[in-house]
Amino acid sequence: MDEFAFIDSIKQRSYKQSSLLKGIGDDAAVFRQTSEDIVTAVDTFVEGVHFSRDTMQPFHIGYRALAANISDLAAMGATPAFFLTSIVKPESWHVQEVEEVFIGMKELANSYGMDLIGGDTVSGKELTISITVIGYVPGGRARYRSVAQKDDIVFVTGTLGDSRAGLHLLTENNLYEHTEFFIQRHRTPTPRVEFAKSLINISRIALNDISDGIANEAAEIAEASNVGMLLYDESIPTSSFFTQFSMKQQHEWKYFGGEDFELMGTVSRQDWPSVKQAAEKTNTNLSEIGIVTEKNKNSNVFIMKDNIKQGLNKCGYTHFR
Amino acid sequence: MDEFAFIDSIKQRSYKQSSLLKGIGDDAAVFRQTSEDIVTAVDTFVEGVHFSRDTMQPFHIGYRALAANISDLAAMGATPAFFLTSIVKPESWHVQEVEEVFIGMKELANSYGMDLIGGDTVSGKELTISITVIGYVPGGRARYRSVAQKDDIVFVTGTLGDSRAGLHLLTENNLYEHTEFFIQRHRTPTPRVEFAKSLINISRIALNDISDGIANEAAEIAEASNVGMLLYDESIPTSSFFTQFSMKQQHEWKYFGGEDFELMGTVSRQDWPSVKQAAEKTNTNLSEIGIVTEKNKNSNVFIMKDNIKQGLNKCGYTHFR
Repeated sequence: MDEFAFIDSIKQRSYKQSSLLKGIGDDAAVFRQTSEDIVTAVDTFVEGVHFSRDTMQPFHIGYRALAANISDLAAMGATPAFFLTSIVKPESWHVQEVEEVFIGMKELANSYGMDLIGGDTVSGKELTISITVIGYVPGGRARYRSVAQKDDIVFVTGTLGDSRAGLHLLTENNLYEHTEFFIQRHRTPTPRVEFAKSLINISRIALNDISDGIANEAAEIAEASNVGMLLYDESIPTSSFFTQFSMKQQHEWKYFGGEDFELMGTVSRQDWPSVKQAAEKTNTNLSEIGIVTEKNKNSNVFIMKDNIKQGLNKCGYTHFR
Repeated sequence: MDEFAFIDSIKQRSYKQSSLLKGIGDDAAVFRQTSEDIVTAVDTFVEGVHFSRDTMQPFHIGYRALAANISDLAAMGATPAFFLTSIVKPESWHVQEVEEVFIGMKELANSYGMDLIGGDTVSGKELTISITVIGYVPGGRARYRSVAQKDDIVFVTGTLGDSRAGLHLLTENNLYEHTEFFIQRHRTPTPRVEFAKSLINISRIALNDISDGIANEAAEIAEASNVGMLLYDESIPTSSFFTQFSMKQQHEWKYFGGEDFELMGTVSRQDWPSVKQAAEKTNTNLSEIGIVTEKNKNSNVFIMKDNIKQGLNKCGYTHFR
């Protein structure tokens, strides 16, 4: 199969987005959006760095890569519309396996009515997937991390640490229970699009998606908003079977595990009931986990654990170290 | 330098596009465009496949990668507005060299008032650059390759084969003249944005940019428009000093060389004077090189050379072979 046949094989037969004027098949795609703001982000995933074939099927690799990108749109309050995908294909990967990656992406894309409108497929030494997503948000309603204010309630959706636990279960042979739940959370996470969209009537709300661990996301919101944050350790939500892991693992995974693709945010006490309503309406677990404080001197984020207040460093994974 | 410091180093201090609401620094960028259509494309470049450090400085690699993407926007008649860049950085590349790649991109971006609004920098085995560009085109004026009609004039801007000749000069030690011209055409090509924008008043015009060689682009227009094409070999424009290369090289490079990032198109005889005016206004070389015919049986594109009509196969470089 050459590149043209491959592109033809992944090309959609029809498009779902009414704003799309031209999909794949010209020098570029064209769309029209006159009523809403446009949101866009890009993320890149490299085999051996971001994923391994030992723990993920090609289907999961595609699914999760797109989920990570959609999660960025959710963190802006946006509705996913389009995606463009670049794939670098090494000889060790069969074209059929790369197709499986796309099938994984499409499975998730279809559930949001997203269209694949562009891409590039080239040869190289290691499988690399780069995805650009485009979404729409009602004018002026994009959710920035820079709007947190002192006395805001800090909240988070879902449970944390599950994805990291799933990775652990895929690489360790110890006997654990409910492994499927954690593995599914790792391989096919669900971005919180519907919940974020349901916050539409709230004028000010800070949102971040949890890609690098809540410690990192909390620090990002605090820094961008020039505030501090105090999180209550016992309020950080974890799943029922999370306690089977060691205390050290639980602590590390819920704060630094990342890739849960839940949403973390801050909102005024006055608007907190609306956030709770949005969670109920969209069947989303929601937890109040802390409070926004004045900017602190040494650490932007503190946790209260066993009645001791301690600084929480961001330990999200960073490249170029 | 860690990833955050690197992102900070490439982040623009201010943005030029008035339609931008949020640049780098949140989960995604946000912009608003209520009057024009939005055009987007992605292209990926891998070291050793698309470029080599033997023939390009990091600056040129960035410059040319973005030029290739802007050329896609030009082929749609669009004005460049934004770009997002993903870079996979191997250990063999210093962070400073990756910064040079960005400086090359920014040099070209600045000349179009483009803003860098997103990106991702990750570790990997080989330098890989993936760029997504976003541009604007007046409503309904995006230029599709599918609108060519029988009896249209086929035209091309600039001269062809120069970039391939430049690559040859960078890898061969033979004595040639005017090497700087060809090398510059290879390393820092100029997309034909202004020319394409000046065609605004023409209602129907097919456009492709020449990334894979004119043989391939002609075939793409012919296939998409369900027509045939006859090109006159002696009309294919080449630069003054192109004749110093062998006849075989000249033929191969002008038809299959690619990466000249000139524009090829077809337009009705009636609108041809407007195209010529646009070329004059933007100081662009323009050549009439053929005519659109009815769809042919065996080959979509023919050339007339030495009074003999022969089929022209597309021999653009394709991956996955």
